[in-house]
Amino acid sequence: MKLLRVGPLGAERPALLDGTGVLRDLSGVVADVDGALLSDDVALSRVRAAASEPGGLPVLEAEGLRIGAPLAGIGKVVCIGLNYHDHARETGGAIPEEPIVFMKAPDTVVGPYDSVLVPRGSEKTDWEVELAVVIGRTARYLGSDEEALAAVAGYAVSNDVSERAFQLERGGQWDKGKNCETFNPLGPWLVTADEAGDPQALGLRLWVNGELRQDGTTAEQIFPVAEVVRYLSQFMTLRPGDVVNTGTPAGVAMGFAEPKPYLRAGDVMELEIDGLGRQRQELRDA
Amino acid sequence: MKLLRVGPLGAERPALLDGTGVLRDLSGVVADVDGALLSDDVALSRVRAAASEPGGLPVLEAEGLRIGAPLAGIGKVVCIGLNYHDHARETGGAIPEEPIVFMKAPDTVVGPYDSVLVPRGSEKTDWEVELAVVIGRTARYLGSDEEALAAVAGYAVSNDVSERAFQLERGGQWDKGKNCETFNPLGPWLVTADEAGDPQALGLRLWVNGELRQDGTTAEQIFPVAEVVRYLSQFMTLRPGDVVNTGTPAGVAMGFAEPKPYLRAGDVMELEIDGLGRQRQELRDA
Repeated sequence: MKLLRVGPLGAERPALLDGTGVLRDLSGVVADVDGALLSDDVALSRVRAAASEPGGLPVLEAEGLRIGAPLAGIGKVVCIGLNYHDHARETGGAIPEEPIVFMKAPDTVVGPYDSVLVPRGSEKTDWEVELAVVIGRTARYLGSDEEALAAVAGYAVSNDVSERAFQLERGGQWDKGKNCETFNPLGPWLVTADEAGDPQALGLRLWVNGELRQDGTTAEQIFPVAEVVRYLSQFMTLRPGDVVNTGTPAGVAMGFAEPKPYLRAGDVMELEIDGLGRQRQELRDA
Repeated sequence: MKLLRVGPLGAERPALLDGTGVLRDLSGVVADVDGALLSDDVALSRVRAAASEPGGLPVLEAEGLRIGAPLAGIGKVVCIGLNYHDHARETGGAIPEEPIVFMKAPDTVVGPYDSVLVPRGSEKTDWEVELAVVIGRTARYLGSDEEALAAVAGYAVSNDVSERAFQLERGGQWDKGKNCETFNPLGPWLVTADEAGDPQALGLRLWVNGELRQDGTTAEQIFPVAEVVRYLSQFMTLRPGDVVNTGTPAGVAMGFAEPKPYLRAGDVMELEIDGLGRQRQELRDA
């Protein structure tokens, strides 16, 4: 299934993209798309039943309708750094021996077509197309990859927007360059795991102003999704409605020769992952 | 005012510790102690009016009543590293030129008397008594220390529990050792800023098994509260209900000579900050 949340920021309603590409209202079936839904088999069955005969769901007029992030009530956003062989090379970093973990605050998450704000004082705002994993079951000290994949509710496109000077040149930890407002566009869809297919066989692409900048595949992940989830569960409890950004392939601005093409107001990012849909954000000044 | 949340985990109700030390039920006055309350002048006035004549509020029997974290719906927990001169020295780190920022997930927050779990595989679980700042107004690109202090709703005792091997020896960012479950006891009280007094003149103390381990003062902070909040607001938007852990003074286990006295199941931590109350946690194995 492709689950969405549509409507004004803070007042989104749940929706379904049916098999024919028609947007349908789910608000008569479930309250929202959130961790409570994703961990509730009964509610999920209700959604699946409705999705299997979508004619019973009201059609939503897509024209002019805002698409929000496809997940409400996000508890935490955990991110994996340098998780693609090619990206690790371009940053000059060594291939990590175990996953590098950092955090984004849930309030950085915005919709897939919302503006992204270049922070005041920023000269190094950068893009990162990523496969986001949405957790559906509590994951705590998992023992196997099978358990890890069973904890995954679905997947979405994520843009792990980063300010490289804040991240790397301002003393200490990466989080300082990862948590600026609007720095995590998510969506358009939450695609359930059964429909997304093999998470290690997904092409990811990102364009800036129409120019292809990232063109990778999750096959290049150093630590695949199952290993990331299993690994994280040794250090923290993942809960329904948590998000894991699993790293970005090569092609970020930081990896270019000088002058690096960092983002400026007016630039446009477009991102897509096979089967997970497409985002588009225009940059504005904060 | 001293605001609390009491009752079983996940079902806490708002409460007030009145001027005579009697615990009183606030659930007839406000729904909860959260960002919505702290940013709502009308609701806050209602609480202040009730607090000024506490006899009108039902008394709660403190005996056997669990004290929860004094804040619900925490959006993010932002932490400052190496923010005391003496602690920076004991870790061998240089005095930071600007605040070091890392994150804890809100779901690490537990009540002030709840158990703290030693993670599986941990050999270096450590304590950190900290002054927590609770945000009451949206803070975004603040221009002055005055604006920063105006964004502060109040203060609380926080224990920024840390696993040093996970934090420092497992590749990359500190967050990996900061986000284990139960790693952020908070409370017992949220003391409103008007009552807490000068945030740069508070003694902080922590005992392990009755032995005094940390005995500092916020006067030793490298970056005082106002500067921390103003600084953070240049990198992220702080919102009502966010928490900032402002760093720990000297005396953590990591700072001791070998064998360092890291925490084990059965150990007991007690923490207090002048005017903000006292915590006590027993360690258990995860």
